[in-house]
Amino acid sequence: MSELKGACIIGQSGGPTAVINASVQGAIQAALEADCITRVLGAAHGIKGVLEDRLYDMGQEDPTELELLQNTPSSALGSCRYKLADPDVDDTDYKRILEIFQKYNVRYFFYNGGNDSMDTCNKISKYMQKVGYECRIMGIPKTIDNDLNGTDHCPGFASAAKYISTSCMEVWQDAHVYDTGMITVVEIMGRHAGWLAGSAALATWAGFGPDLIYLPETDFDMERFIADVEDIYRRTGKCMIAVSEGIHYADGTFVSEAKTSATDGFGHAQLGGLATMLAEVVKQRTGAKVRGIELSLLQRCGSHLASQADVEEAKLAGRVAVESAVAGVTDKMVAFECLRAGERYECRTVLQPLDIVANFEKKVPREWINEAGNGIEQPFIDYVLPLIQGEPERPREHSLPRFARLKKVLTTEM
Amino acid sequence: MSELKGACIIGQSGGPTAVINASVQGAIQAALEADCITRVLGAAHGIKGVLEDRLYDMGQEDPTELELLQNTPSSALGSCRYKLADPDVDDTDYKRILEIFQKYNVRYFFYNGGNDSMDTCNKISKYMQKVGYECRIMGIPKTIDNDLNGTDHCPGFASAAKYISTSCMEVWQDAHVYDTGMITVVEIMGRHAGWLAGSAALATWAGFGPDLIYLPETDFDMERFIADVEDIYRRTGKCMIAVSEGIHYADGTFVSEAKTSATDGFGHAQLGGLATMLAEVVKQRTGAKVRGIELSLLQRCGSHLASQADVEEAKLAGRVAVESAVAGVTDKMVAFECLRAGERYECRTVLQPLDIVANFEKKVPREWINEAGNGIEQPFIDYVLPLIQGEPERPREHSLPRFARLKKVLTTEM
Repeated sequence: MSELKGACIIGQSGGPTAVINASVQGAIQAALEADCITRVLGAAHGIKGVLEDRLYDMGQEDPTELELLQNTPSSALGSCRYKLADPDVDDTDYKRILEIFQKYNVRYFFYNGGNDSMDTCNKISKYMQKVGYECRIMGIPKTIDNDLNGTDHCPGFASAAKYISTSCMEVWQDAHVYDTGMITVVEIMGRHAGWLAGSAALATWAGFGPDLIYLPETDFDMERFIADVEDIYRRTGKCMIAVSEGIHYADGTFVSEAKTSATDGFGHAQLGGLATMLAEVVKQRTGAKVRGIELSLLQRCGSHLASQADVEEAKLAGRVAVESAVAGVTDKMVAFECLRAGERYECRTVLQPLDIVANFEKKVPREWINEAGNGIEQPFIDYVLPLIQGEPERPREHSLPRFARLKKVLTTEM
Repeated sequence: MSELKGACIIGQSGGPTAVINASVQGAIQAALEADCITRVLGAAHGIKGVLEDRLYDMGQEDPTELELLQNTPSSALGSCRYKLADPDVDDTDYKRILEIFQKYNVRYFFYNGGNDSMDTCNKISKYMQKVGYECRIMGIPKTIDNDLNGTDHCPGFASAAKYISTSCMEVWQDAHVYDTGMITVVEIMGRHAGWLAGSAALATWAGFGPDLIYLPETDFDMERFIADVEDIYRRTGKCMIAVSEGIHYADGTFVSEAKTSATDGFGHAQLGGLATMLAEVVKQRTGAKVRGIELSLLQRCGSHLASQADVEEAKLAGRVAVESAVAGVTDKMVAFECLRAGERYECRTVLQPLDIVANFEKKVPREWINEAGNGIEQPFIDYVLPLIQGEPERPREHSLPRFARLKKVLTTEM
C-alpha cells in the first residue's frame, strides 16, 4: 500500500462515556507518532466542527494534559448528534466536508462514536470514493449502551457497568438498614438494549444487589411486575429492583411514556422519570416506604469507577484505528474479539466493515435473561465480569480528580 | 475512678453514612481489648434492638470481617429512627432498657448517631442515674448532614462531601459536551443545613463545578433564581446549579413542597423531586435542554469515594468513646477540635456534654455564603478541603467492593 501523506482529523460523537477520551488519547498519540500524518486536528463537536471549520491543532497540546485524557470523562473535543443526509438526496454537507479536507489536506479521518457515528463514517467514506478524493476513514467504537454490532463489547460499557454494579451494592446496603419495609427502584440507561441494566446483576452476584431486573429485551407487564415485587416484599420486607429506562409493554409503548395508562394503576402526570413512577405504583399496592433512584448522567461519566480493562481497551482501539489507516486500511471500525475461559480473558482487535456495524443494535441474548424476564442468567455475568476488572491510576489534586485541561487552539486562530 | 466490670452495648441510629461502620469497628475493637468489658453486644437496629432483646454477640465475629467494616457503607448492625418518650411522661421504654441492661449486666452503652441519638443517650443516662444503675453512656457522632453542635465536623460528612464534589465534577464534564444549550440541576441532601450542598463548591473550586449553589441557610426566591440561571445561560449557553433539598421560601415553605404555587410558575403535580421541578421551571423560561439529577441515597452510601481522613476519624471516635468510658467518663459525646493553618490540618478528640449536642442543628455560617445567597465563599472551602483528603484502601473481590459479612449471632439464640 502506498504511503499517504497528509493531516488527520479526530472527532467524537454521541453521548459521552467514562473512557471515550482514552480512545482519543490513543488515537492522538499514535497520530503524532506517525510520520505520514503531517498534522493532528481535533474536530470541535464532531462532524459539526468539520462543517464549521472549527478544528483544534492537537500538536500544540501539552503531552501531560493529553496523558490525563484517559482519566477524564465525557468528550473532551466536544460531541454532537448531527446526522448527515443521504448524499443522493442532499450532498451539501459532503461537499463542505470535502472542501475542508482539501483545505487542510486531510487524508485520515477517525470518528469515535456509536451506531450513528459509524453510519457517518460510512457515508463520508463512500462519498470520498465517489468523488475520487483519497482519504482513509476509520471508526473507533464507544457507547455505554454496548449495542454495536460486530464487536464483543464497546469501550465505555464496562466502566458504566462497574459504576452501576458498585452503586447498586452500596444502595443495597443503605436500603437494608431499617427493620421497616423498603422498596427501592433503580433506573438505569439503555433505551433499546439491556446491557447496562443487566450489569446490576453483578451486584446480586457479589452478594448485595437487586432482587429483580427488567430489560427492554422482554415485554414488561405491570401486573406481573407488581406481583413479583409484592412476593419478595411480603417474604423479606425489602425489595430492590433494577429497570432499564427502555422497558416497554407488549405493544411497544415505553413504560416511562405510558403516563396515564389505566393498566398501570397510575393516573398522575409523571415528571420524575420511570423509577419514581414505578416506586409510586408499588407504594400504592404495598404501602411500603419506597425510593426511586435514577442513575442519570452519573453512570456514564463516573470515571472514578472506570475499569482498567476498559481504559486500556479504549486506548488500544484509538491507537489501532490510526495504525491500521497508516498501514492502508479504510472503511473499517476497530472491534474486539474476546476469549473467556475460566479466569482467562483475552481481548484482541479485529477490523469490521463499517456497513455491518452501522444502524444495527445488538441486544442481550434472550437466553441470558431468565424465563420470567425478571432476572439475569450466569452467561451474562461470565460475559461482563472480565470487562470490569482493574482500577486505573487516577491522578488527583487535593483528593479531587485532576482532569485534562486542553488548550484547544483553533486552526483558524493561528 | 473505680473499675466498672460488665458488658457493653453498641448501637447505630439514624440515616447511614459511608463511614458509620468505621466508628462501630473502632468501638468494637477497643471494647474487645478492654479487660473490664466482659462482653461486646451489638444492638440490632439501634435502641429497638435493646427494647426487643435482639443483641448480637460481636465476640463471635471473624476479626477479618470486623476489619472490613471500615469500608462497608450503611449501618451494619441496622439502624432505627425510634425516639424515646420523655421519661417523666412515660417511662415504659426506660424500665425495659434497665431490665435488659440488668439481664446482660450492661455497664457501657455506646450510641452512634446524630442529634436524636445524642438525645437518646442523654435521656437513658439521666434515667439510669435516677434509678441508681451504674452505667457509662457515650455518644459517637455521625451524620452526613454535619449539623451536630460542639464538634468541628461529624464523621460521615466528609465522605459525602467528596462523593458530591467528585460527582459534580464528572457531571460538569458531561453537561458541557454538546454545543447546544444545557442546564443541569443537582439536588443534594440536607433538610435544614447546607453543608452537603455547599460541598459542591469544591468542584467549582477545582475548575469544573456548579455556577450557582443554593443552601437552606438563606431564603430562596424563585424569580431571583430564574434570573440568576438565565443570566449565566444567556452568556455561556450552559448553567449548572446545585441545590440543597431543604431550600425554602421566606415564609419557611420548602420549595420542594410548594408544588402548585402560582409564584413558581409551575402548576403540575410534582413527583420527581426538587431537581426535576426546578429544571422544568428553567426549561419553561429559557427553552434550554435541562437535566435534573438527584444524588439520592448514592451520596450517603458512596464508600468507594470515602475520604481516608473521614474513615480514620470515624474509627478514632469509636475507639475514644470506649476508652473514655473505660477510664470513667460518662454522658459525653466524642467531638473533634481541628486546627487548620495553611496546608496543616490536625484533628484531636474532645469530649462534649451530651446535652449541649442534642437537639441543636449547626448551620453553615451566613458569612461563608455569598451575599446574593447563590454561591459559596472561600472559608467554606478552607473548612471542608482538609476533611476529604486521602483514599482509603478498598478491599475488592473481582474489582467489586468486598463488604463485611457479619454472622450476627443473637444472644437469645445461644
